[in-house]
Amino acid sequence: MTERRHGRQFVRTFFTSPTAVEGEDDSAKMLRRAIQLRGMQAPDVWVPDNEDATAPSMRDEGARNIVEVVSEDGADFPGEIHPRVVWHRDSPSARYRGFQHMLEITDPEGGAVEHIDGFVIPEVGDIDDWKKADEFFTIVENEHGLEEGSLTMSVIIESGQAELAMESLRDEMGKPTNNLERLFLLVNGEVDYTKDMRAMTPTGSLPPWPELRHNTSRGASAAGLIAVDGPYDDIRNVEGYRTRMTENQAKGMIGIWSLTPGQVVEANTSPLPPKTGSWLLDVDGQRVELESEDGIEVYDGDYVSLDALGDDYELLVGSTTRTLTGEELHEELLKMTSYVPSMDDIVDSMEEFEAAKEAGRGAIAMERSTTLRIGQTEFDISTDRMWDEATYQAAMTPISLFQDVYENRPDQHEELEERYGADVVERAMQVGR
Amino acid sequence: MTERRHGRQFVRTFFTSPTAVEGEDDSAKMLRRAIQLRGMQAPDVWVPDNEDATAPSMRDEGARNIVEVVSEDGADFPGEIHPRVVWHRDSPSARYRGFQHMLEITDPEGGAVEHIDGFVIPEVGDIDDWKKADEFFTIVENEHGLEEGSLTMSVIIESGQAELAMESLRDEMGKPTNNLERLFLLVNGEVDYTKDMRAMTPTGSLPPWPELRHNTSRGASAAGLIAVDGPYDDIRNVEGYRTRMTENQAKGMIGIWSLTPGQVVEANTSPLPPKTGSWLLDVDGQRVELESEDGIEVYDGDYVSLDALGDDYELLVGSTTRTLTGEELHEELLKMTSYVPSMDDIVDSMEEFEAAKEAGRGAIAMERSTTLRIGQTEFDISTDRMWDEATYQAAMTPISLFQDVYENRPDQHEELEERYGADVVERAMQVGR
Amino acid sequence: MTERRHGRQFVRTFFTSPTAVEGEDDSAKMLRRAIQLRGMQAPDVWVPDNEDATAPSMRDEGARNIVEVVSEDGADFPGEIHPRVVWHRDSPSARYRGFQHMLEITDPEGGAVEHIDGFVIPEVGDIDDWKKADEFFTIVENEHGLEEGSLTMSVIIESGQAELAMESLRDEMGKPTNNLERLFLLVNGEVDYTKDMRAMTPTGSLPPWPELRHNTSRGASAAGLIAVDGPYDDIRNVEGYRTRMTENQAKGMIGIWSLTPGQVVEANTSPLPPKTGSWLLDVDGQRVELESEDGIEVYDGDYVSLDALGDDYELLVGSTTRTLTGEELHEELLKMTSYVPSMDDIVDSMEEFEAAKEAGRGAIAMERSTTLRIGQTEFDISTDRMWDEATYQAAMTPISLFQDVYENRPDQHEELEERYGADVVERAMQVGR
Repeated sequence: MTERRHGRQFVRTFFTSPTAVEGEDDSAKMLRRAIQLRGMQAPDVWVPDNEDATAPSMRDEGARNIVEVVSEDGADFPGEIHPRVVWHRDSPSARYRGFQHMLEITDPEGGAVEHIDGFVIPEVGDIDDWKKADEFFTIVENEHGLEEGSLTMSVIIESGQAELAMESLRDEMGKPTNNLERLFLLVNGEVDYTKDMRAMTPTGSLPPWPELRHNTSRGASAAGLIAVDGPYDDIRNVEGYRTRMTENQAKGMIGIWSLTPGQVVEANTSPLPPKTGSWLLDVDGQRVELESEDGIEVYDGDYVSLDALGDDYELLVGSTTRTLTGEELHEELLKMTSYVPSMDDIVDSMEEFEAAKEAGRGAIAMERSTTLRIGQTEFDISTDRMWDEATYQAAMTPISLFQDVYENRPDQHEELEERYGADVVERAMQVGR
Repeated sequence: MTERRHGRQFVRTFFTSPTAVEGEDDSAKMLRRAIQLRGMQAPDVWVPDNEDATAPSMRDEGARNIVEVVSEDGADFPGEIHPRVVWHRDSPSARYRGFQHMLEITDPEGGAVEHIDGFVIPEVGDIDDWKKADEFFTIVENEHGLEEGSLTMSVIIESGQAELAMESLRDEMGKPTNNLERLFLLVNGEVDYTKDMRAMTPTGSLPPWPELRHNTSRGASAAGLIAVDGPYDDIRNVEGYRTRMTENQAKGMIGIWSLTPGQVVEANTSPLPPKTGSWLLDVDGQRVELESEDGIEVYDGDYVSLDALGDDYELLVGSTTRTLTGEELHEELLKMTSYVPSMDDIVDSMEEFEAAKEAGRGAIAMERSTTLRIGQTEFDISTDRMWDEATYQAAMTPISLFQDVYENRPDQHEELEERYGADVVERAMQVGR
Repeated sequence: MTERRHGRQFVRTFFTSPTAVEGEDDSAKMLRRAIQLRGMQAPDVWVPDNEDATAPSMRDEGARNIVEVVSEDGADFPGEIHPRVVWHRDSPSARYRGFQHMLEITDPEGGAVEHIDGFVIPEVGDIDDWKKADEFFTIVENEHGLEEGSLTMSVIIESGQAELAMESLRDEMGKPTNNLERLFLLVNGEVDYTKDMRAMTPTGSLPPWPELRHNTSRGASAAGLIAVDGPYDDIRNVEGYRTRMTENQAKGMIGIWSLTPGQVVEANTSPLPPKTGSWLLDVDGQRVELESEDGIEVYDGDYVSLDALGDDYELLVGSTTRTLTGEELHEELLKMTSYVPSMDDIVDSMEEFEAAKEAGRGAIAMERSTTLRIGQTEFDISTDRMWDEATYQAAMTPISLFQDVYENRPDQHEELEERYGADVVERAMQVGR
């Protein structure tokens, strides 16, 4: 795995706030509210957004608001702070304005810069455009006496050009005439990307863009960066947001944009293993979670039913009935079920494998068994899964994420311990080290 | 959005005709018929096809036929004219023959060249192969006293090499030793691509190649070109053709190959917003269009049913029944429905947003409401959607397309006005300017 | 189609064996067993695996075992032999150890090298990392007096870096300071790729990675290499393995890793055309194979039913009933059915097209007809498909594969003739040449 260079190895949440709201007594209201967020409501990366979330006429005031709010309360904010400034591959005036705002926000006299981790640059184009932004970071650092490369740069991928640029990062980072090692997040921006690609859907909803998400995740993997998906603007649709995150995680894109503190909680939680494990049953192509009653996993829908017939069983799936021996039924049910391990389960398995490795064994079988109840009929299933070094390493991803969170977010310790119990948290912090 | 360089910003239709048919009194019959097409039956780009559609032995005659037919009737043809010549990355003799045909077709003595917009080059390989073709264009232009770069070049992407070449267009266009700025269309050729990739399906049908379509669309976006999908050869399957186009549009690939005037009509129409809006209901994972009866949207299938129970409601979806309050039902139905806006709706919303922006507001709520009838039960739903600059810009894509069509295709004015009404057309031509 | 440079044009199977198993009387047991495989149980490429399948402490012994077993029995093994050695883009010590093992295995004194076709290098990174491995091959060849480039190099794609490296192969192969023309297989390694991408799924199953598979297949196509998918570790799930292979074939990825001789048989067979053709019916989005009874294709499920009503027909699909004329029904059934041609069918069609081409015709209609029985009702359907040069070329892929297999695997002749009959085999070997 390519080494990540900056403070965080993982970023779950990218939360934007308008920097200046017109018609309010205090135009910095939203910033002041956001900087007070703590625990699961506080994002890993907070983005005072001096671009799209703020009206163009309010952006100079927005830059001043950032300085004021961050200098006052930035020291106590538990996440990183990365303001977004204006930028556009096709507009030198937008680029120059963004540069001026960066200069202003990082002026040591303002007192904010010590709490600012970097900036987010939207609407980047090809790699030479990224270099223009990087050069402004370098000048800003030099002007204000900051260490070269100390401000990270995150970009929004919202054009085909930028999607292609991610392929050359590995070649370009480290060249003597840039400081692109400052790169931190690759963030999708699907709304503007859709515009740039001139894509349309009948209802005006966003296309799913699976290839873009793959390419952003791959770009991050190849260059030691962190991939973040764009905003999910159907704010009330919590289930949809969760589904999107599960999809993203299977692509290696663990972070996602959050538009509300409610979305932050969801996105901070989603990539962490569940507190309790659960069994799933394939029902007409969908995986349905079984209900656990006194250690028995219960399915009481109509699609699948099971009856004992003497020594045999009758299994109905959809409209197909089969008579099976106990052994055949066991095989069939293994195919139809799967298990979502809890944090405790994962830590257990890893500890067991570590002990086996210590004892000189390279692969061990992990057993998993339970009793299913389908309709009125109960049946025991049990399966072995071989664990070798590769299985162990793959299982490490959620644990590494947890460890990164635990180390960087003391404000979430209490909630994490409530969720998992102190014992599991402690063991999860030890495993794999 | 990267600027498009040539006459058309969008191309909906790419229609090929054989240049010489053996065994006919007039071997140019198909060309003569195609060049008479007008209105929705006439493509945006017409391709006299001196490659695969024409037998190898007939291609010299085909080149002469192009000259004859285009010199006679090209002035009145409403679309652009881009003959396809032979070319192959692996065959110098095919490349040389293609060059000779280009020289012949553009000879000013033939009188066709003033109506010829460019050429289509099939079977290109890596970028250096594209440059070989470009060089022949330059020589042709120089020999015939045409302006350098005045003939556009479109290519068929039908190899893995060419798919990769699209990633370097942005770097290569503008180099001093080529004229690749002449590039116009990137056209998929899935049949030969399938052969080049050595892909197979059990029935011999074409694989869907979603990644190729994404990459072609992205290549066009990054380099200011126009993406066109390959032929859909199940000509009688109009529904399948439409589904393919809707999928393509969600990828930003708005143009498609057409094999018949009937397909041209479909493909000219598909990316334009509908005349009337419609409501969709999610039925078992499919979006079903509701029937509109006196302003009520009616679902009369079996999968969903709704009954009033005093103040509450019983909603059956599939085999799951839930009892919901009116408010819960409203929330649920909002999730299950979506709206496909008409051209009129889109123009309305854009005008409303423009007025709000003028008045200094950056975001406004657009309301959409209707009455649903599910079984015997009626229920009113109403939803707000926030429009900001990004929403506005995204909604602009179908309108920009419409404006491009209207400006470049006077022969379609009548049909467009019949479709939308003169008032909507006029407002659509004003909005966003 | 880009020319393939090495002995095989196609590789169906990539079968790995541990090189040294601890705690056995004979640590080379697995190698000795594998090298005896013949016929459909023997892979096209056999990989004595001195990396992940073998414990780190056993790898020096593993290298010696390879020499011993291959020198003894390699001459009679029907497939190619490509040991996998250790390598890692992030570990110079792993790379050096891999180099030492290559030196040892190819030492002419050991007598194995004449049966060794190349090596498999895992965990490669960007293209410069591939060049490091290539350089070791060159040194090995030089030290042992082998022809430069005579050992092929296959790589495992298991990082985002390596996925991107495949895009530059065409540019890099042929440069004077490397011998990358030795490249042979591009093999996906989804377990480690998942780790490198830091992807997670709830149950710990592997993500499907469709984009990676596309990109590997495309990389192979562009550079004249052969694409192979990674291991499918749910060994008992034969149906799942087959589905994966069918998916892969539609992406042009014809080879797949096999973990057992049983999987080898499946994977050697899957890309070959079936012995007998079959009709499929679309049933609720799934294609169901019809049963053939005395030349009639029978559907006896519930989802579709058909009744004759005088001259008309009543067709029930799901919960929708329509009354159709005979002609309408014919059209409808053509849409709902498809045909999977047998090897015999494919050869027939190709011969017919070749004869037509000889007679000067460029396109001919191929008829396909049958009688369907749905419930109690029989109905004849018949359809024409146009075949032109492109159709012919596309149909050639499975035939080319068959011809490559037949030429390179005399040990499979008997099984192939049993499967297809000697006559079909003979005709399949003639067609297209």
